[in-house]
Amino acid sequence: MITVAVLGAAGRMGTHVVNAVGAAPDLELVAALDHSDDVAQAARAGAQVAVDFTVPTATEANVHALIDLGINAVVGTTGWTEESLLRVEEHLRERPELGVLIAPNFALSAVLSMRFAAAAARYFESVEVVELHHPDKVDAPSGTAVHTARGIAAARAAAGIAASPDATTHDPDGARGAVIDGVHVHAVRLRGLVAHEEVLLGNPGEQLTIRTDSFDRVSFMPGVLLGVREVVRRPGLAVGLDSYMDL
Amino acid sequence: MITVAVLGAAGRMGTHVVNAVGAAPDLELVAALDHSDDVAQAARAGAQVAVDFTVPTATEANVHALIDLGINAVVGTTGWTEESLLRVEEHLRERPELGVLIAPNFALSAVLSMRFAAAAARYFESVEVVELHHPDKVDAPSGTAVHTARGIAAARAAAGIAASPDATTHDPDGARGAVIDGVHVHAVRLRGLVAHEEVLLGNPGEQLTIRTDSFDRVSFMPGVLLGVREVVRRPGLAVGLDSYMDL
Amino acid sequence: MITVAVLGAAGRMGTHVVNAVGAAPDLELVAALDHSDDVAQAARAGAQVAVDFTVPTATEANVHALIDLGINAVVGTTGWTEESLLRVEEHLRERPELGVLIAPNFALSAVLSMRFAAAAARYFESVEVVELHHPDKVDAPSGTAVHTARGIAAARAAAGIAASPDATTHDPDGARGAVIDGVHVHAVRLRGLVAHEEVLLGNPGEQLTIRTDSFDRVSFMPGVLLGVREVVRRPGLAVGLDSYMDL
Amino acid sequence: MITVAVLGAAGRMGTHVVNAVGAAPDLELVAALDHSDDVAQAARAGAQVAVDFTVPTATEANVHALIDLGINAVVGTTGWTEESLLRVEEHLRERPELGVLIAPNFALSAVLSMRFAAAAARYFESVEVVELHHPDKVDAPSGTAVHTARGIAAARAAAGIAASPDATTHDPDGARGAVIDGVHVHAVRLRGLVAHEEVLLGNPGEQLTIRTDSFDRVSFMPGVLLGVREVVRRPGLAVGLDSYMDL
Repeated sequence: MITVAVLGAAGRMGTHVVNAVGAAPDLELVAALDHSDDVAQAARAGAQVAVDFTVPTATEANVHALIDLGINAVVGTTGWTEESLLRVEEHLRERPELGVLIAPNFALSAVLSMRFAAAAARYFESVEVVELHHPDKVDAPSGTAVHTARGIAAARAAAGIAASPDATTHDPDGARGAVIDGVHVHAVRLRGLVAHEEVLLGNPGEQLTIRTDSFDRVSFMPGVLLGVREVVRRPGLAVGLDSYMDL
Repeated sequence: MITVAVLGAAGRMGTHVVNAVGAAPDLELVAALDHSDDVAQAARAGAQVAVDFTVPTATEANVHALIDLGINAVVGTTGWTEESLLRVEEHLRERPELGVLIAPNFALSAVLSMRFAAAAARYFESVEVVELHHPDKVDAPSGTAVHTARGIAAARAAAGIAASPDATTHDPDGARGAVIDGVHVHAVRLRGLVAHEEVLLGNPGEQLTIRTDSFDRVSFMPGVLLGVREVVRRPGLAVGLDSYMDL
Repeated sequence: MITVAVLGAAGRMGTHVVNAVGAAPDLELVAALDHSDDVAQAARAGAQVAVDFTVPTATEANVHALIDLGINAVVGTTGWTEESLLRVEEHLRERPELGVLIAPNFALSAVLSMRFAAAAARYFESVEVVELHHPDKVDAPSGTAVHTARGIAAARAAAGIAASPDATTHDPDGARGAVIDGVHVHAVRLRGLVAHEEVLLGNPGEQLTIRTDSFDRVSFMPGVLLGVREVVRRPGLAVGLDSYMDL
Repeated sequence: MITVAVLGAAGRMGTHVVNAVGAAPDLELVAALDHSDDVAQAARAGAQVAVDFTVPTATEANVHALIDLGINAVVGTTGWTEESLLRVEEHLRERPELGVLIAPNFALSAVLSMRFAAAAARYFESVEVVELHHPDKVDAPSGTAVHTARGIAAARAAAGIAASPDATTHDPDGARGAVIDGVHVHAVRLRGLVAHEEVLLGNPGEQLTIRTDSFDRVSFMPGVLLGVREVVRRPGLAVGLDSYMDL
């Protein structure tokens, strides 16, 4: 049984984490803390792991406090920079038995999709990305699609693969979409959708499609629980949930 | 048994038509004419129907010659204008027993998809079009996608439907694609593909997707044969294969 | 402004209908009645239309009471037989100005999908149905998939179309799925899904796919509101939402 | 420049390999041998690599002959058993500088799809496989689908994952399809299709879909060329194209 504290337990994600930990037979929820609560309560409650879904302005201080308290940390809060990650890595050297996971995305399908897309990208002549979201989204393309395209572009560059072929000479209205690091990205906005992404890879005579559909925030919970179960046996700093996955 | 002549029988489409007519148990190929052959040969061979896949500069003269010869016509050649259609309609008044079908597209899946998309468009809050083709195509979006978008837009306008919702305020790279008569159209180019199109329609909590895949020119043959079988019992001018379909 | 009463307003569907009517600018909610309330309250509140999402044992009596009260009815409750429909039809002859819509399915995407599948079925050599649902569903295939397959089979029979080709001689584990009126139907059960269906139609070189995704019960509301708006100007009994749609 | 001989050059696959090698700027075709030709001709022509697409009765002898001749081998012919693979492995110990690749499938999309499906399988509650082929296929499900399902099942067993949830109690017509090592597999047969497969993985609120489409035998060529380029720098026996891919 792993004992778990949730920081930011009253937030949208925190509420889901509290429920998911409570429902898992191998985990025990020992503390559900609000933004204003003292992180030391997690230690007094006997938590081995703390899950942080607080706010960008609080998360780094929380992690350092958790390390001092001897508690492993799983962090979904955004706002981490290269510098702040380095400070955590350095701090962890004092406590080599502790693990910290900082992950921008806990949706397993999205994490796997990006990983598979990058792995496959060098083996196909063509690759494009189509993301589809609800029509209330204000930015296009989605951050995940940009991240996916950059991962694909980096993998192709490392393998010395040329740009995807494209004979288009006449596209007066911009139907070919955005080009992110050389990869075409298309953004669909449709009532009824939540968050979806397709990576299309093509060779002569064959196509590989990797599609993710996220219907609900509850989809992040299997990834959060995976992080909790793994962080206790993976000392050191890990960035990205896929670093805990056997792929 | 319906007797059939093929005009432009040596062309890419004509060759397929010759084979398809030859393989159909209820049709008999009686003449396979080249561009330079005299259309009157079709009459001498006893053709009830002539299928014209010649060239834009010849097709109108061919149709008028066929009407004079008392032969029904199924025409897949492009280049027809409103004026040239009116001239055929007028000519047919002299021969009220004859039928002429002029169709820009004989792929049943594409014809049905456009028809269904237009019929469904007024019942959904959102609609977008994604077309996907091989990367040697020089124009984007495809003519079929433009035609599809216009049919959708016209159906929505006729029903007084507002534009699809879209909160996008930040799209620096054009990921939202082309806008054709108010309908977003996206063009994917991928090695291995031939010609594909998806119409996506969305309401709160539901989505309807209509997708067509064309892998081969042979896909036009069921539509051509449908035209041949129907033109002999549908006097007058028909434009578009769907005018012969019970939908 | 159309005035609306909801019968079964406290039920799962009724709650959604109350909210949807309340949010529609051209509709006014004048009564929200529970199962035990007297239907006459709808008349006293001045309702032009009553929406019935009650229970199979109550719905027929409700409709006859509404007809006597001079109120149009939109009915989503199940349990109607051929005989009970005939009794409503007969009763309506006394009140030729009233309309009654009885619909088993208000999801526009599902209604359209079934209609389009039946319309397209005669134009393709092959057709199969794949339905996908959450894994807590106890029956397979879904009632909607059976209904879809039967509509397809009836359309093909009416047009004299042969069975879909199938050379399978070795299928020891039943991978080819169920056969409903000659149409193969496959049932997928997957955590995370709600209710989805694909109709696949194939000819040499081409494919047409019609897919519906229902993510939420809210998806029935556009169909219910369509029924409310149309029933006031469509006297007589209508069965199936598609009878009110211009397709 | 890598020099290449093709064994079985006149066969369906061999013809494609001859063309693909001829078109690759970094490869040189030095010998195109028929089934009856002496393999030693490949050595006399100076081949560094031989590609074997012959017949099951000849392929093992060919590989041993190639090893004796000091030529690396890329083998797509089927019929290999555990014992015949062991004999090649043993023979290669005498020539530790040589590489042999024996691969049942050279379609990159299929190889990647099976690998990704197996890698992802342990992270999802549900997984099912849908394969779609032309209607002239006599067996169901396809060998690739069986292989995919077994890989998924093995990965889940190794990770101690329970069976996919399924509440089905009523399925009189077998709509739930085949069950291969506990994984449901569905087989669709549709005119116009070639060879396609979808792996569907589901968690609460999310879905991951991995789809491959093979339209043409030419789709095997990128995989064959990858094998040729890698075998010269990967001594020893490799089974499966994915053993040469950085995934």
